[in-house]
Amino acid sequence: MDINEKALLMHKEWQGKLEITAKAKVKSKEDLSIAYTPGVAEPCRKIHENKEDVYTYTMKGNTVAVISDGTAVLGLGDIGPEAAMPVMEGKAVLFKEFGGVNAIPICLATKDTEEIIKTVKCLAPSFGGINLEDIAAPRCFEIEERLKNELDIPVFHDDQHGTAIVVLAGVINALKIVKKDKKTMKVVVNGAGSAGIAITKLLLNYGFENIILCDKIGILHKDAEGMNWAQKEMTKVTNKENLKGDLKDALKGADLFIGVSAPGIVTKEMVASMNKDAIIFAMANPVPEIMPDLAKEAGARIVGTGRSDFPNQVNNVLVFPGIFKGALAARATQITEEMKLAAAHAIAGMIPKEALNEENILPKPFDEGVADKVAQAVIDVYKK
Amino acid sequence: MDINEKALLMHKEWQGKLEITAKAKVKSKEDLSIAYTPGVAEPCRKIHENKEDVYTYTMKGNTVAVISDGTAVLGLGDIGPEAAMPVMEGKAVLFKEFGGVNAIPICLATKDTEEIIKTVKCLAPSFGGINLEDIAAPRCFEIEERLKNELDIPVFHDDQHGTAIVVLAGVINALKIVKKDKKTMKVVVNGAGSAGIAITKLLLNYGFENIILCDKIGILHKDAEGMNWAQKEMTKVTNKENLKGDLKDALKGADLFIGVSAPGIVTKEMVASMNKDAIIFAMANPVPEIMPDLAKEAGARIVGTGRSDFPNQVNNVLVFPGIFKGALAARATQITEEMKLAAAHAIAGMIPKEALNEENILPKPFDEGVADKVAQAVIDVYKK
Repeated sequence: MDINEKALLMHKEWQGKLEITAKAKVKSKEDLSIAYTPGVAEPCRKIHENKEDVYTYTMKGNTVAVISDGTAVLGLGDIGPEAAMPVMEGKAVLFKEFGGVNAIPICLATKDTEEIIKTVKCLAPSFGGINLEDIAAPRCFEIEERLKNELDIPVFHDDQHGTAIVVLAGVINALKIVKKDKKTMKVVVNGAGSAGIAITKLLLNYGFENIILCDKIGILHKDAEGMNWAQKEMTKVTNKENLKGDLKDALKGADLFIGVSAPGIVTKEMVASMNKDAIIFAMANPVPEIMPDLAKEAGARIVGTGRSDFPNQVNNVLVFPGIFKGALAARATQITEEMKLAAAHAIAGMIPKEALNEENILPKPFDEGVADKVAQAVIDVYKK
Repeated sequence: MDINEKALLMHKEWQGKLEITAKAKVKSKEDLSIAYTPGVAEPCRKIHENKEDVYTYTMKGNTVAVISDGTAVLGLGDIGPEAAMPVMEGKAVLFKEFGGVNAIPICLATKDTEEIIKTVKCLAPSFGGINLEDIAAPRCFEIEERLKNELDIPVFHDDQHGTAIVVLAGVINALKIVKKDKKTMKVVVNGAGSAGIAITKLLLNYGFENIILCDKIGILHKDAEGMNWAQKEMTKVTNKENLKGDLKDALKGADLFIGVSAPGIVTKEMVASMNKDAIIFAMANPVPEIMPDLAKEAGARIVGTGRSDFPNQVNNVLVFPGIFKGALAARATQITEEMKLAAAHAIAGMIPKEALNEENILPKPFDEGVADKVAQAVIDVYKK
């Protein structure tokens, strides 16, 4: 049985990968009067007196909503809220299994930016954090930005920042090996959607200065046509020389390639045109922009992909359980840029010096303690 | 330690009475590839092809949202969404413990009818049913009505119909004892809010013909002032003789009193003015409209309250777990009047003839099999 058949069978057996269970067992009249009426009125009164007490007496403080409109699900695209449910349930499973965080999948019957924002704001009282998921670019940017500003709980679009953080972790460790200077390195990011733009922003924040962002239309530059508003914004902070051309032109002399785009679009020739000790993150899934063996043959020194069957898997599960675990524990109201950088360092730091090599720049999902390390890093930033 | 102190302590210890647990355990790379990527794409595809498959591959089919705006919480009133959380969590605990139904508490940061409707409609793809809770009258009527019409999953306002169903169950059994004819009995319902109006409607549907509905303004009649639109509607189907006056006037010669109003507002004299073999449901909580001993002294034959420390407790927990269990199992798109009547009969039927007496007209929350009986009744109606 292949993985697809197996997954289908198991999903049918599970009929939902999550279960809502009662910590408060109700076996007697007394149990009932404590967990429900009349006793329950007392924590209600306390919270009514002091809203912050909702963190003491309810599940809010350890519960995240995983929210999607079903418009950018995996590689499947706009498949609608019902069809997005298995992914959101899966995400919630990972929140719990890796981070001990309660997560509830909520798929919305709207694609309208304003309606999504309004709905999430309406739901917010019950949740300690909002994890946005698989919402198409560019509206995902506006939704996240607005919610961050208008809510007092952390809001995190994992497709953007989860990916960006783990890529940065990989880059941090790769630089220890190739010993290049981030200030002078030429970076090419291909795919100017939610992940590509977030990666670019985080790399800029980390200190990279020369990043070329590409998309289907080629290199994004100030006069390029067919860009959305978010891509136009990016031309102000990337491609300072206002380079024009396609991905092939961009890659000439590049030190680092990051692909969140499409299978097989990078050739051996393109890799060969890159600088010495090239680093490649080819994260199109399941088929990367270039297969690791080809990239290596063409001269790349370090290659990461999104796949678990090759070395250096770039996997968001290293990030989101720990990020929220930490943010919830600290009662942070936002997940800041500083927290994201700290999370990347924490993940990079999971690989001890002696174990670091071209095939081992990132921890694996099942390595012990990743989420706790990330959570602690977030808490430490918040405490500062 | 009294019940309030105990409840506070336990709520602090629980920090949330619910937990989201993973049925799909993730302990290995293979687990991960089945519960999440890449395997999860397969059920997504299936649901995208056929939306109904969401019931096969996700938790939707056994999951209910418990939704409140926090405006009519217990006897506490409009305490806001955060302070309503302990009650909604408690409700979710009862859904699971009594009916095996997953329930998720969602308290909304809005009191606006249109916004509540829109939000619930946006959430609906993830849920198999919507349980509305503690939303103030009269907007609760419009919200429920609109959602029933605009959604394809069952919507149920428990404060209305849960209460109405269990009251009707009690009435059905009380009539077996007093042997009166519902067509000629005089019924007085005091408290024309969500519960009182729903009880009146269900009793009318069951076949009562002479019901007087009272509220703070006294008997509701066609020319009464100070009624909201829902109360005005009710004057078309109640109080056919267009009686005027107060509760005291209404109760003269009445056979059945149902109070969902305020503590102690019914006197012994008022009960004494009722017809022989009077039946009283005094459900103000925790202090009833009249205490059972006083009512009995004044001549009432059967008395029920909302309290577990007196006989004949009227408790919604007899209803909502089974109603949703049945509706979800049948994949019913609505909870119809017929289902409500069937549920009342099922609850009444839990008391065998030989056990039926003035002090035992309703099953107790922990009696075995109530939810299953109610669920089966709902399923049977649906199958017809």
